[in-house]
Amino acid sequence: MSSSSHKANVRATRTENLAQWAINLQYQDIPQPVIERTKELFLDWLGCAIAGRHHPAVSAIARYTVEMGPTAGKNSEFVDGSIGFLTSPAFAALVNGASSHVVEQDDLHNRSMMHPATVIFPAALAVAQDMKANGKDFIAACVVGYEVGCRVGEYLGKNHYEMFHSTATGGVIGVAAAVGHLLKLDLDRMLSAIGTGGTQAAGLWQFLIDASHSKQVHTGKACFDGIFAAYTARDGLLGPQDILEGSRGMGNAYGRGSTKPGAIDRNLGQDFAVLASSFKWHASCRHTHPSVDALLSLMHDHGLKFDDIESVVARTYRAALDVLGLSGRGETVHQSKFTIGFVLAVAARNGQAMITDFTEESLHDATLRDFQDRVIMEYDADIDSKFPEEWQGTSVRSELETKTKALFEYGGCKDVKEVETVIKRAWNLELENNLNGFSFK
Amino acid sequence: MSSSSHKANVRATRTENLAQWAINLQYQDIPQPVIERTKELFLDWLGCAIAGRHHPAVSAIARYTVEMGPTAGKNSEFVDGSIGFLTSPAFAALVNGASSHVVEQDDLHNRSMMHPATVIFPAALAVAQDMKANGKDFIAACVVGYEVGCRVGEYLGKNHYEMFHSTATGGVIGVAAAVGHLLKLDLDRMLSAIGTGGTQAAGLWQFLIDASHSKQVHTGKACFDGIFAAYTARDGLLGPQDILEGSRGMGNAYGRGSTKPGAIDRNLGQDFAVLASSFKWHASCRHTHPSVDALLSLMHDHGLKFDDIESVVARTYRAALDVLGLSGRGETVHQSKFTIGFVLAVAARNGQAMITDFTEESLHDATLRDFQDRVIMEYDADIDSKFPEEWQGTSVRSELETKTKALFEYGGCKDVKEVETVIKRAWNLELENNLNGFSFK
Repeated sequence: MSSSSHKANVRATRTENLAQWAINLQYQDIPQPVIERTKELFLDWLGCAIAGRHHPAVSAIARYTVEMGPTAGKNSEFVDGSIGFLTSPAFAALVNGASSHVVEQDDLHNRSMMHPATVIFPAALAVAQDMKANGKDFIAACVVGYEVGCRVGEYLGKNHYEMFHSTATGGVIGVAAAVGHLLKLDLDRMLSAIGTGGTQAAGLWQFLIDASHSKQVHTGKACFDGIFAAYTARDGLLGPQDILEGSRGMGNAYGRGSTKPGAIDRNLGQDFAVLASSFKWHASCRHTHPSVDALLSLMHDHGLKFDDIESVVARTYRAALDVLGLSGRGETVHQSKFTIGFVLAVAARNGQAMITDFTEESLHDATLRDFQDRVIMEYDADIDSKFPEEWQGTSVRSELETKTKALFEYGGCKDVKEVETVIKRAWNLELENNLNGFSFK
Repeated sequence: MSSSSHKANVRATRTENLAQWAINLQYQDIPQPVIERTKELFLDWLGCAIAGRHHPAVSAIARYTVEMGPTAGKNSEFVDGSIGFLTSPAFAALVNGASSHVVEQDDLHNRSMMHPATVIFPAALAVAQDMKANGKDFIAACVVGYEVGCRVGEYLGKNHYEMFHSTATGGVIGVAAAVGHLLKLDLDRMLSAIGTGGTQAAGLWQFLIDASHSKQVHTGKACFDGIFAAYTARDGLLGPQDILEGSRGMGNAYGRGSTKPGAIDRNLGQDFAVLASSFKWHASCRHTHPSVDALLSLMHDHGLKFDDIESVVARTYRAALDVLGLSGRGETVHQSKFTIGFVLAVAARNGQAMITDFTEESLHDATLRDFQDRVIMEYDADIDSKFPEEWQGTSVRSELETKTKALFEYGGCKDVKEVETVIKRAWNLELENNLNGFSFK
């Protein structure tokens, strides 16, 4: 490993700039809106982790944890409290990371095409619990993890995304940096953590073709592997110092010709990935969200009820028409979330379109189907010209609370008081002395 | 997952052919020379694992195991008995896999450019110990692991190897198959294990550029990840069914234009990768080996001693001249292994060129340096025309025993009797009721 004095003689690599920023970041230097957004993203993540915990892939990974991981004497929690023991941070994060990407309600960072929450929060939470770190340490580590992970995802670019699930390949490096920040690694060790993270980066889209379960493997393993990278770096395992731009590094091996080197270290400390990460409010297809928001807003402003509405014209952009035209009348729960008329019917009647609003029963609801038939979609050139730049939602805490309650209910947590306590904790996360107690039966 | 009846209607993929062969293979169907070679490769691997156990990367990974893995209540051994507890197969294999690739004395499978022993044996041994499998089960699983791993490595091809450490990327799938064989997975689950293995495949050559420690990460993690793939497949986690040739699979994402599809399932049951894997007899650069063998053979046949030799002319092929010309006089231990004159001097005087023969002291030995000055290398067109096809050594058990003793000594095991017991066990491996007791202080 090159020493710091040696490095002073040569121009720093972009990866060194990024690592230097990551080790320097202190909680008190983080702008308040970044802190507030991080807390919102954390709560949003927690709901997703609870909602996904009964998926068969998560159960298989949890069984692996019982067989291979410690089942006593450790400090880190499964969000699924029914697993019933504490384990190591590596194994807790493996399961929690798998669980939080199941219901596809987690956040989206547009430029990197990543879902950072599902890798950064489980890893940082499990390690923070193990280290007995406080809320401020945790927030700072998550801000670092988002920034590093999303910048790597954006660096790897569009051609990478054609083959690879960037949430995993960028994510493992984000995890290494977040955990490295909690472990207070110095620059050389942070670079080793990033390097060892990157040389483990993996996750192919092949699973989409037969609907197999790799999505859960990718997020869970990005957590596990990133934690491995940071802990072994702390203990002297040297990682490649320029894993992103080196001749045998990720850019050349995985970038497939579309890397964006500037993304690695441009505007560090000014731009924040947590602010560029958007929530998925509604459980329906992302392309229905602007119409749902517009309808609910009109109903609210004019005091309209479901029965008052004779017909709806949803003006939208080309990509929405293309995608939403494929699901017919919406015969399955999954398809119904892609059917604009059905989605707007649900939203108009229930005042929301949460995961708990799309059920087998709702498919056979004549009132909803009747409303659906009175909805048409129309192309709007003005709206189209603003896509995708203005596609992003904004955070509203009451909406997030509603979504969280629905996700907890979907995951089998019926105790509303418990959820309200969690929400309160999230809004005051920086005041927490430790991060325990985020595990639910 | 598609059912078997569904599959009967469509032509099987190459990956299905390979998986079908893997689940069908029974110990009694394995040709005797394949069994004998597997036992030799196992002993060779064990020596390498002992020799590498004190490397700082191995120590860091072992510390990770203490922090994250179980330290009691499990059945799998570290080859490094000084770690002092039993752990899960996943963690034992992680450390043993890292350890056995350190001294670069492990085997080589030419066509795949893989070192299969360092991934297949640690994983299969740790799982066999955990399951209390017997010697025959273990041998059959290792034959499967070699075959599947090396075929994937050969499939991914030369362009893949430019960027990726195929021992890891092919290895993780070989491990998944070997462990899947021990777990007696059916076809669908074996395909899932292979698929989940492949979607975790990773390992970049970037570490060569700054001599960092990823080599140990790659082999250890290939073991860990392949075990994860097989166990979770057993428990219902679905992996992509065509991870090799699917449109978003390894061939397209990692092959970089040089895949060899036929390698996946050509001559299954006739060709055996264990027979095509060669031993590294001498601790010096591979390109010195033919000359060392020739010199030792001449000395033996003519009853020559070190002092009888006036000069040596080593005729060799172009690639050897190119590589061996780079290390000058051999001023460091590492360089001295690439200096033909020095290597031949060591071999002539000691009757071998083992890892224990290349020491700091030997660098300052005037007798060796004097002999070195009397060696010249010459190009030989006839030899060159046969390279690399006839580059491979053959197995001689007494040589392997000598090598094993040197590797154990290098790793700090001075008890010759213990090594002799291990050698005897290896030669009778098929008679073992269980695989415990391969751990050494």
